[in-house]
Amino acid sequence: MFKLIPTNENIESVKGFYCDGINAGLKKDGLDLGFIYSDTICDVSAVFTQNRFQAAPLKHFQKHNITKSNFLLVNSKNANAMTGKKGIDDIEEILEFTKEQFPSIVNPIMSSTGVIGEYLPKEKIKSSINKFNLNSKNSLNFAKSIMTTDSFEKMISFKVILQDKAFNIAAVAKGAGMINPSLATMLCFIVTDAAIPKKDMDELLQKNVKTTFNAISVDGDRSTNDTVMLFSNHLSGAYDKEAFDFALNKVMHNLALKIVKDAEGGKKLAGFEITGAKNDNEAKKVALALANSLLVKTALFGEDPNWGRIASTIGASGVECSEDRLKISFEDIVVFNCGEIFFTKDIELKAHNIMKKDEFTIRCDLGIADGRFKAYGCDLGYEYVKINAEYRT
Amino acid sequence: MFKLIPTNENIESVKGFYCDGINAGLKKDGLDLGFIYSDTICDVSAVFTQNRFQAAPLKHFQKHNITKSNFLLVNSKNANAMTGKKGIDDIEEILEFTKEQFPSIVNPIMSSTGVIGEYLPKEKIKSSINKFNLNSKNSLNFAKSIMTTDSFEKMISFKVILQDKAFNIAAVAKGAGMINPSLATMLCFIVTDAAIPKKDMDELLQKNVKTTFNAISVDGDRSTNDTVMLFSNHLSGAYDKEAFDFALNKVMHNLALKIVKDAEGGKKLAGFEITGAKNDNEAKKVALALANSLLVKTALFGEDPNWGRIASTIGASGVECSEDRLKISFEDIVVFNCGEIFFTKDIELKAHNIMKKDEFTIRCDLGIADGRFKAYGCDLGYEYVKINAEYRT
Repeated sequence: MFKLIPTNENIESVKGFYCDGINAGLKKDGLDLGFIYSDTICDVSAVFTQNRFQAAPLKHFQKHNITKSNFLLVNSKNANAMTGKKGIDDIEEILEFTKEQFPSIVNPIMSSTGVIGEYLPKEKIKSSINKFNLNSKNSLNFAKSIMTTDSFEKMISFKVILQDKAFNIAAVAKGAGMINPSLATMLCFIVTDAAIPKKDMDELLQKNVKTTFNAISVDGDRSTNDTVMLFSNHLSGAYDKEAFDFALNKVMHNLALKIVKDAEGGKKLAGFEITGAKNDNEAKKVALALANSLLVKTALFGEDPNWGRIASTIGASGVECSEDRLKISFEDIVVFNCGEIFFTKDIELKAHNIMKKDEFTIRCDLGIADGRFKAYGCDLGYEYVKINAEYRT
Repeated sequence: MFKLIPTNENIESVKGFYCDGINAGLKKDGLDLGFIYSDTICDVSAVFTQNRFQAAPLKHFQKHNITKSNFLLVNSKNANAMTGKKGIDDIEEILEFTKEQFPSIVNPIMSSTGVIGEYLPKEKIKSSINKFNLNSKNSLNFAKSIMTTDSFEKMISFKVILQDKAFNIAAVAKGAGMINPSLATMLCFIVTDAAIPKKDMDELLQKNVKTTFNAISVDGDRSTNDTVMLFSNHLSGAYDKEAFDFALNKVMHNLALKIVKDAEGGKKLAGFEITGAKNDNEAKKVALALANSLLVKTALFGEDPNWGRIASTIGASGVECSEDRLKISFEDIVVFNCGEIFFTKDIELKAHNIMKKDEFTIRCDLGIADGRFKAYGCDLGYEYVKINAEYRT
């Protein structure tokens, strides 16, 4: 028995957590350096990109095998990736300096997002650190400071009421492009005052990444910097595993969809719901192949119910499938079923009308066994090209 | 000892072959139905798409296990894919009718390209068959009749001079979008009068597909209809395996690059030359990941030497690699080498100038072992989106 209530405040609502964002001169305008601070030491769990070239902050975290911390520093504009030993040394220097400025900080963590392959402007960062006020509670500024091509801030928070106690959970994410299963230039920081054991933190974070951040795709690329981090300071004294799992999934699902909705230039959020696959893995393979197919993505953009491209993509994905068992529907409008084409002018118009909506689901039943997975993707239009052709300039 | 001489005529130059293209009313304007005919029976070899949903013409060919034929019928505008048993029945009916019209035809073959998921307009096709003149020699019309989104005809031919004899080889291809390794909506028909044994035809066709049509990518999709077919009527009496292999490779490489150059809306032909991989397969995986990466493709379009995206794509491809062994160059301009960034303003400008060209090579040495592969890709710009968002309308 538990109840989730959305809260208007974000990190502010979680006992003992503070945050803010400032301009350190990395971006011409706007916030580019943020922090999250807890006045007691937190347990920390993290999930990182599967890209072989992990960025320096990810290497630094793993090198120190961090499990407890009370401070996170995040910069945007520069990813500190492909920067070798110097990239890690730069982090050590910045974090040492930070600890000197703020003696209450223990095991500080750094995270970065932005252009790959340029050294961190560490002097700019160091000279701005003392502008931080560790007593600030400004989630909006923190959310803004970690944005790159994002067009809106991505935040979500809940109060979770148990029988006689309650805890809070809040999260901030960034990400709009280079999003792909197995994460992408996607950062997500979750804080909670739940009295959750470290072992449950690790388990539930891993579990929920699979169906949330690893089920979305904007462009099939996965970045060097992707990070999901969970901080818990246990201050509420309240915990229930089932309730926390549920709340964590809500938080991560919500932010994952916000990232797809903010897909660089994308206007449509399409769910690809695969059922009847040989197993869940094969269903996932198909769902992500559809979310990543350029021809499917441009058809979404054109609001064209070109189901032939969907079929072709399924066939090309390499999973077990057969023409005489396949069923394809736009929401509940069936266009192809077990070898038969149901694509009259009338059906085509109905499917087209579904695709005119901002959000809809395309369903494919492979008719083989019970495997299922739902992935989320977006359309690819002129804006995506514009943003990505000109990103560095 | 052999010599290749390009010939101005195409299929016309090969002894005993005839071809033409007409309008059968499938397209509003332009040619949409073509044939190749040989006045003697040919040996035929074919390679088809690896898409699980092979189109009806591919199933028909394999159902009849065709190894000898003297007639190929090709229509554009409709792919006859996802059309089940009816799709194959339609082909049988059309080809039976064709044989009645032209009694000299033996084991006719059909091939189709266009929209997936619509039944073939077989009456239009049947009522146009008798307009064919089997004595025509018009490669240009044939090439036009098989085009869909192609913006130019794709043809190539050579006379191959051996010590005291000579044979001819000519080929026509179509393809501009949905091009990906393991073929794509790509058709290629090669005819020769070389006295090549059937076993060599099969072997050399398979071998050369790997480094030509399977090394190009426009958009990462692979279609239901991809076909490479080789017809030989042996009429020249001339053959040398090494010479034929060389000529076949030239023909297929030339047409493969023409397809990438005609990539829907693409303006750049980029070669991705991978060396130093663990093995050739891993090199191929990296090369094609680069050719398919949306972020790399949009950077090509923006002429932006954003090598960080190249590195990130390599890291995400899942092959064995390490930051301190990797080298990335634009032609001969090194931007990253074994963990060190060489990306001064001067180097960036040089790399940018290379990317301004229509054709260039990006080189990545993984520094692991001797695996190598070169793939070819193109940029992704506004035109690609326009063409594919509006394709069916």
